[in-house]
Amino acid sequence: MRDTVEIGLGKAAQRGYHLDDVAIVPSRRTRDVDDVSTAWQLDAYRFEIPCAAHPSDATMSPDRVIELGRLGGLGILNVEGLWTRYEDPSKLLADLRTVVEAEEPVTPRLQEIYAEPIKPELITERVRVMREAGITVAVRVSPQHTLALAPVILDAGVDLLVIQGTVVSAEHVSTVDEPLNLKEFIADLDLPVIVGGCTNYQTALHLMRTGAAGVIVGLGADDDSTSDTVLGIRVPMATAIADAAAARRDYLDETGGRYVHLIADGDIHTSGDIARALACGADSVMLGAPLALAEGSPAGGLWWHSSASHPKLPRSAVGYYAEPMGSLDQVLYGPSDDPYGRMNLFGGLKRAMAKCGYRDVKEFQKVGLMLDR
Amino acid sequence: MRDTVEIGLGKAAQRGYHLDDVAIVPSRRTRDVDDVSTAWQLDAYRFEIPCAAHPSDATMSPDRVIELGRLGGLGILNVEGLWTRYEDPSKLLADLRTVVEAEEPVTPRLQEIYAEPIKPELITERVRVMREAGITVAVRVSPQHTLALAPVILDAGVDLLVIQGTVVSAEHVSTVDEPLNLKEFIADLDLPVIVGGCTNYQTALHLMRTGAAGVIVGLGADDDSTSDTVLGIRVPMATAIADAAAARRDYLDETGGRYVHLIADGDIHTSGDIARALACGADSVMLGAPLALAEGSPAGGLWWHSSASHPKLPRSAVGYYAEPMGSLDQVLYGPSDDPYGRMNLFGGLKRAMAKCGYRDVKEFQKVGLMLDR
Amino acid sequence: MRDTVEIGLGKAAQRGYHLDDVAIVPSRRTRDVDDVSTAWQLDAYRFEIPCAAHPSDATMSPDRVIELGRLGGLGILNVEGLWTRYEDPSKLLADLRTVVEAEEPVTPRLQEIYAEPIKPELITERVRVMREAGITVAVRVSPQHTLALAPVILDAGVDLLVIQGTVVSAEHVSTVDEPLNLKEFIADLDLPVIVGGCTNYQTALHLMRTGAAGVIVGLGADDDSTSDTVLGIRVPMATAIADAAAARRDYLDETGGRYVHLIADGDIHTSGDIARALACGADSVMLGAPLALAEGSPAGGLWWHSSASHPKLPRSAVGYYAEPMGSLDQVLYGPSDDPYGRMNLFGGLKRAMAKCGYRDVKEFQKVGLMLDR
Amino acid sequence: MRDTVEIGLGKAAQRGYHLDDVAIVPSRRTRDVDDVSTAWQLDAYRFEIPCAAHPSDATMSPDRVIELGRLGGLGILNVEGLWTRYEDPSKLLADLRTVVEAEEPVTPRLQEIYAEPIKPELITERVRVMREAGITVAVRVSPQHTLALAPVILDAGVDLLVIQGTVVSAEHVSTVDEPLNLKEFIADLDLPVIVGGCTNYQTALHLMRTGAAGVIVGLGADDDSTSDTVLGIRVPMATAIADAAAARRDYLDETGGRYVHLIADGDIHTSGDIARALACGADSVMLGAPLALAEGSPAGGLWWHSSASHPKLPRSAVGYYAEPMGSLDQVLYGPSDDPYGRMNLFGGLKRAMAKCGYRDVKEFQKVGLMLDR
Repeated sequence: MRDTVEIGLGKAAQRGYHLDDVAIVPSRRTRDVDDVSTAWQLDAYRFEIPCAAHPSDATMSPDRVIELGRLGGLGILNVEGLWTRYEDPSKLLADLRTVVEAEEPVTPRLQEIYAEPIKPELITERVRVMREAGITVAVRVSPQHTLALAPVILDAGVDLLVIQGTVVSAEHVSTVDEPLNLKEFIADLDLPVIVGGCTNYQTALHLMRTGAAGVIVGLGADDDSTSDTVLGIRVPMATAIADAAAARRDYLDETGGRYVHLIADGDIHTSGDIARALACGADSVMLGAPLALAEGSPAGGLWWHSSASHPKLPRSAVGYYAEPMGSLDQVLYGPSDDPYGRMNLFGGLKRAMAKCGYRDVKEFQKVGLMLDR
Repeated sequence: MRDTVEIGLGKAAQRGYHLDDVAIVPSRRTRDVDDVSTAWQLDAYRFEIPCAAHPSDATMSPDRVIELGRLGGLGILNVEGLWTRYEDPSKLLADLRTVVEAEEPVTPRLQEIYAEPIKPELITERVRVMREAGITVAVRVSPQHTLALAPVILDAGVDLLVIQGTVVSAEHVSTVDEPLNLKEFIADLDLPVIVGGCTNYQTALHLMRTGAAGVIVGLGADDDSTSDTVLGIRVPMATAIADAAAARRDYLDETGGRYVHLIADGDIHTSGDIARALACGADSVMLGAPLALAEGSPAGGLWWHSSASHPKLPRSAVGYYAEPMGSLDQVLYGPSDDPYGRMNLFGGLKRAMAKCGYRDVKEFQKVGLMLDR
Repeated sequence: MRDTVEIGLGKAAQRGYHLDDVAIVPSRRTRDVDDVSTAWQLDAYRFEIPCAAHPSDATMSPDRVIELGRLGGLGILNVEGLWTRYEDPSKLLADLRTVVEAEEPVTPRLQEIYAEPIKPELITERVRVMREAGITVAVRVSPQHTLALAPVILDAGVDLLVIQGTVVSAEHVSTVDEPLNLKEFIADLDLPVIVGGCTNYQTALHLMRTGAAGVIVGLGADDDSTSDTVLGIRVPMATAIADAAAARRDYLDETGGRYVHLIADGDIHTSGDIARALACGADSVMLGAPLALAEGSPAGGLWWHSSASHPKLPRSAVGYYAEPMGSLDQVLYGPSDDPYGRMNLFGGLKRAMAKCGYRDVKEFQKVGLMLDR
Repeated sequence: MRDTVEIGLGKAAQRGYHLDDVAIVPSRRTRDVDDVSTAWQLDAYRFEIPCAAHPSDATMSPDRVIELGRLGGLGILNVEGLWTRYEDPSKLLADLRTVVEAEEPVTPRLQEIYAEPIKPELITERVRVMREAGITVAVRVSPQHTLALAPVILDAGVDLLVIQGTVVSAEHVSTVDEPLNLKEFIADLDLPVIVGGCTNYQTALHLMRTGAAGVIVGLGADDDSTSDTVLGIRVPMATAIADAAAARRDYLDETGGRYVHLIADGDIHTSGDIARALACGADSVMLGAPLALAEGSPAGGLWWHSSASHPKLPRSAVGYYAEPMGSLDQVLYGPSDDPYGRMNLFGGLKRAMAKCGYRDVKEFQKVGLMLDR
């Protein structure tokens, strides 16, 4: 049973487990890989693969959002990123790579370029381009700027709105500003909203009750994110996903059938990690650094979280993959010539599902797990 | 008692243990090393040592199979490997070494040379050569190609058939092809079949019920295999072997005396690991990379799993041991001048058994274990 | 529940947890960072931040104590350090840096310069300078020298007295000297005393009963301290803090309301660690090496514990941070351009508190914890 | 309580703990270091420190045995080592250092020089020299050669006999030779015998029942020993010592008062490790590699176990400490200028005992322990 440990007299802590602590256990049946489906349906939108992109400027430009959409995934543009601050940030992105290659400090440079104000007209323009491409259009806004930027975003006409901060709650308290009331805000909207990140059962349940179509689980932790050393917050993703899946079940019961999707954001580096996240109960994953490995990534192999540019408290380093693995198509679907699971991410997932005898992602959430670390 | 842990609300996982988590505990008795036997009897075939070879082209050519057989082990040739695709693959193997030494990408090269079709007449020829050498002849075929290749293999006249895939189940589901019905297939055969790999009690028991003489436990995991990062599948071998040993006991009871051999394939690098695998309940081990350390290894010190050459999803890197440790005889029986347990593999096993006071492998399966990691 | 483990027959050990084993779990509420207070009130003295400085000569000169006091923290001068042995130790400190940069052994040099006797008149002079600066004046003395040095210290007129040794108990036994009776000593004083380090419930409770205003929990362990390898003593800080917090509760009950402050000293490197220590129940932290990262640190980036200079049994190596991160102000309050949580230490704490929805340190002690290592 | 874990269905293992998993917990009392005694009394022999030397030629020549004896410890000469095979092995030891410095394979060279037969007259001569020095004379013989060499050793006149093999049991089974009956052998002797190593309660108890005065617990594991990789045998020393201490208690009861000493041999590198071993219940420790750090060590900083020279199955690498820490006196008693606990080994122990308020080793065996890894 789940451990509640007394770490000192009268002070309890739950034990949590990371994705990496968990191994998938093949069952007594196997299946042909061609009989397996990885499709993901969120509200009216169908995707070939259970894949959203973490909305970092490092990997998601409008062009890249379009490309990912066409390939069957969900691209998301950050409307508080460089593409809405600058007409053309390409040169700035190229410069960042020069800074990194020269091994000079890159955080001050990020802080500097993100100091430029957001331009509402650029939001309109970026959304227009993506709409015209015919893909499912999704943008990310932070909870702090949702009230201010929502009118522009909605006018521009997106399909999905992603409200994402490092840690988001259904109840933000402020004596300074009028805080965003997520429940009222979402009720007033006509389009599905994805909201997060959250890290436990209770917050997940509260976020589901706001009416969100999807909840992001996790803080996007990876080798470059530093919320652990800066904030002391570290999310054991296997536990966070499983807890949120319990909230999904309870909310399904409470509402008599409303199914809220869980999008796992954190500790996902390889196809094996994607399989583990779904096995723990996620409906989809959010990919960050793994997409920076694809040719033509907007920042040319650089990777950072949006918190990397915080003016006073940056919480992400900048990673750099100097050698791309292959095209975005190949990174998602192969063929791969990388034996480490960083290419053909969803081909790898499909094969894992086949080896365990499952047909689709929903079934695969029931696969057996073993703890071995 | 065995832990079932709730990793999140309502989501359970068993705890599993790796060979390396386990230490052998000497008992109150010791024994002369000369009074210890490591013999292994599988069906009508007797081996001096409980040693099968992982059927990789890196270590198992027809000549090497013969040499290992003469030394008292069980060599296995992969009939889907290079020796049945090419008249003489020696030059290709030597080229691979050049690629590795030049630190160029070797996976694409492997994919390329394995794209050549299998030639049935070469299967016949390879088996003929091995038969004429007077050894116990065993070849490996994948479950996918068993139906197609079995007639040729059986006509050629092998002693043992090894049906091995990364993960094999007794019940493969396909809407595309007619799947292999292992139980019917084995019932129709006159010769003993070894089948696997499997990773848990249930699959092991089902495989035993197909009539197999031996079941392979594990996926051959080692430093170069990447089924963990690619598929999320990682097998805690101590637990997998002990669970399969429970299936062996239950099947023995269910059949009133049919003893199915367990061949442990994974996490075995040294004589200490061999001892641990047997102590957990295996009857024999399958050696992969450790044999690449022997002089005259077909690929000259290179090592890879068959999944390394998968055209779309390779799942093994290529290891390279530039300096051989000694002859195959020395690697198996010593004398050793390597203090790390990579030479005199079965002399090391014998001494471990002697230090614990046991006479043979079956007795040694009862030795005490301690968990310390 | 808390584990008591039988490590061998009849030999029990409690399980203890390190700060790093623990992660903070955001609750269902978030809060504006501007609504959060990090203030710390100890007796009559109020500090903007819950921050005392570990009294090492490496980081605490009289000038630096003044600077930290003015910035809202509690600086502490070691009256058994170089500033009371030498008129001007600046040259010696600069020399140490030369020794370290030349990669020569630095311990013998430390042992040599600390062999110089303490000069009481320098104690008087150092305290005078600090008093005149208008800050809260605190000095550290070891238990062994408290009786001898107290008269000079008290005459000089300090606000707080810190009696600190590696391990301090309320009951020191000696057949050689008259031992310090802490209870009587403190009862006779007019000023608040901070005493420690201690490592468990019982010692903490006993130290509280001496009448101390604050108790130091931990031995100041960090990458450079070596009490583990030299003495076998290693303090799992999460457990030590939680146990001492239980002693604080019990002593509060026993005295009908005397609240003793806990100052956590050990394993604190980043803002995330500060948050973890408070979350476990500390009222404040003691910073050592993190302050050596500030520009103008007395030993120019060097860091050592006072035990580093022990003439027969040194118990700390000497660390060196060649590149300062920024001014002391920036290290404490930012802005930071370091993504690893080593700058803006208390801005990071504030943000962690805000993400979890808490208003002040006392409330934050209730935040949820997860064990994940 | 002690964990018995089911590692697989029906297969149990005890959990064991290493010295490094354990931390000493200071109690509520402290004590003056000058009031602490580290004396060790074994039978009629008294030592200033609870220190025996692992009988390796690397650290124990006749001269070194004498020096250690004069300094208050128990030196032990291996009568199956180089000093009884060669008149003067100094040149051979110096040559070994040359081989190591040239980074050539040293194991074959060790195997070669140990192939020289043992000369009984040299045993007599070595013992004579040690006796004349007036120290307590102890030599080590292996169980295999005890019957053959005992007459010579006893005639030469030693004070203590150490019968030590990697794993020794009270019941050795052989169909080849007449095995040594330890109980009868010891009963016939007039002098105290130390016997081991052993790794668990039952073997320890059986060895006590042979009439031994001391039992060695552990296999001398350290960074260079490889019994784990070669034999699969790895001893969690905290558990092994505590279990043997339980056997000591039970044997004390069973005999109405015969106290058998436990000498811990394994995982002891620093003064902190010595403290941990005694805290777990040992009466003394056996030092191997730590003594190779002393100036004038016979092999000039090289270190190996006797199993390193095994002709067919070497089980120890050769370590090399190019820079000595200080004289043997300093390594044992300081003063130290090494902050890592490798010098002033018994000064460090004394201070650990003082910090925990204990007066002697027997009392210190009761100190509190915490598990934190």
